[in-house]
Amino acid sequence: MDKPLTSKIKTKIWIVKGDRCHFRSDYLATEEPLELRLMLPEQTVAVTMRTPGADFDLAAGFLYAEGIIHHREDIQTISYCLDTNIEQEQRYNIVNVKLKKGLSPNLKSLERHFLTTSACGVCGKANIEALKVRGCPPITTEAKISAEVIYSSPNKLRNAQGIFTATGGLHAAGLFNFQGELIKLREDVGRHNALDKLIGSAFLARELPISERIVMVSGRSSFEILQKCIAAEVPIVCAVSAPSSLAVSLAREFGVTLIGFLRGEKFNIYSGKQRIEIADKMQNKF
Amino acid sequence: MDKPLTSKIKTKIWIVKGDRCHFRSDYLATEEPLELRLMLPEQTVAVTMRTPGADFDLAAGFLYAEGIIHHREDIQTISYCLDTNIEQEQRYNIVNVKLKKGLSPNLKSLERHFLTTSACGVCGKANIEALKVRGCPPITTEAKISAEVIYSSPNKLRNAQGIFTATGGLHAAGLFNFQGELIKLREDVGRHNALDKLIGSAFLARELPISERIVMVSGRSSFEILQKCIAAEVPIVCAVSAPSSLAVSLAREFGVTLIGFLRGEKFNIYSGKQRIEIADKMQNKF
Repeated sequence: MDKPLTSKIKTKIWIVKGDRCHFRSDYLATEEPLELRLMLPEQTVAVTMRTPGADFDLAAGFLYAEGIIHHREDIQTISYCLDTNIEQEQRYNIVNVKLKKGLSPNLKSLERHFLTTSACGVCGKANIEALKVRGCPPITTEAKISAEVIYSSPNKLRNAQGIFTATGGLHAAGLFNFQGELIKLREDVGRHNALDKLIGSAFLARELPISERIVMVSGRSSFEILQKCIAAEVPIVCAVSAPSSLAVSLAREFGVTLIGFLRGEKFNIYSGKQRIEIADKMQNKF
Repeated sequence: MDKPLTSKIKTKIWIVKGDRCHFRSDYLATEEPLELRLMLPEQTVAVTMRTPGADFDLAAGFLYAEGIIHHREDIQTISYCLDTNIEQEQRYNIVNVKLKKGLSPNLKSLERHFLTTSACGVCGKANIEALKVRGCPPITTEAKISAEVIYSSPNKLRNAQGIFTATGGLHAAGLFNFQGELIKLREDVGRHNALDKLIGSAFLARELPISERIVMVSGRSSFEILQKCIAAEVPIVCAVSAPSSLAVSLAREFGVTLIGFLRGEKFNIYSGKQRIEIADKMQNKF
């Protein structure tokens, strides 16, 4: 039964480089929720967004780090979900851990200390459905942004990062207008916190929805990053690094323009290419 | 009362470059827990590790992203904790949000969806104490590792990262022996998951504690990264990027050798320098 989901997913993306643009195949790192259940009796103790693969290691390592188990013998069995009421695919997103008889870990401390992310189901599809149920509207703006505006934003973000300059150790989330001006910047050790601070600041200033703005994040874009941007109705999300599979699914479902690997005069478009204008300098030469 | 904690902290570190080493001042990005309380009546809904600053934005953005609040008017007041029973310094790690009268958000969904990180108190000091209470021993190994072994590890990790090569989008955690051989590698979209997978794999193979190994992580080192390594009694932790203030505090408290900004023939030592041997080639010239 140990047949994990794939850890990477093939997709088609647009590569933009200078004034050129082409379409090609690429791979995304899979992001799917893993639900960890302790059988004492059955109780979900964590849902974490993870890349499928080594799921039993993840379950054991997590329980060990949280002080729930201490020795190999504390685990009687680890398995994927065997519940036939659950769809075959989703069963690989649920790991059951059966502890040694007589072991009664303090789950109260676990509940407080530890950790799951904003997952709301046991498969990526369920997460996307949950956002729809919450009433987040699809992004429909017909605005167009020049690739030059996108190229220039990482430097503007970096130059404005006061704490990063001193420590070299902070994530940032920035809000740009469609002309490429940096309107607002927030920093944090956590990527998600930086974005919560940015959107929270707009919320408190009664500036939501921010549907005429670009959000740029340092690092990668994940399910959570897209979830937060969709809630604020942000039409264009740019990240310096790679998006996860679920970030791309969410962006496509809600019509968000998602840009990744934004470095120098080069970036990838994973969704919503119609909002990006690429100056066709080649054409002007003829 | 809105006087946030500092967002960066000064410290002294060792800079190792090639065969040279010097001591100098540097800044760390502050990492401290933030406890978010909703007053309906008082209930803690989240504890997140964050960099102090824009804490009210963080609270509002978080509640908005989670669908708890929808309009500026939904918040009556946001303040730091006024409870005089709590130490002055800790009050800046607690944010109280009072919602509009009559608003009764569904916290059940919040409890499920969202969660908190492995914070166990409302200040970094409390977190460190909690690890001691749990009985994690200090690291006392007298092993010495050459700087050359450290220099070579990022390339070994990167070359072994199968999914990263395809997607450019994955974190990794690797286990090296003291001779610099890569023993085990795990990948994930989440840094913490990659480390949980690595340590969990050792746990399942009855290889814990891993007190004769080096752990190397891509990205930054945070409180959680150090917490997991200390539980597994790892003596040397290396990261490609910056550590947070709390990662450094934990490493120093438990005697872990903590290395950051490991790039090419250069790294910083934040703690436990006695375990690193720097070949003094200059001396041989005379």
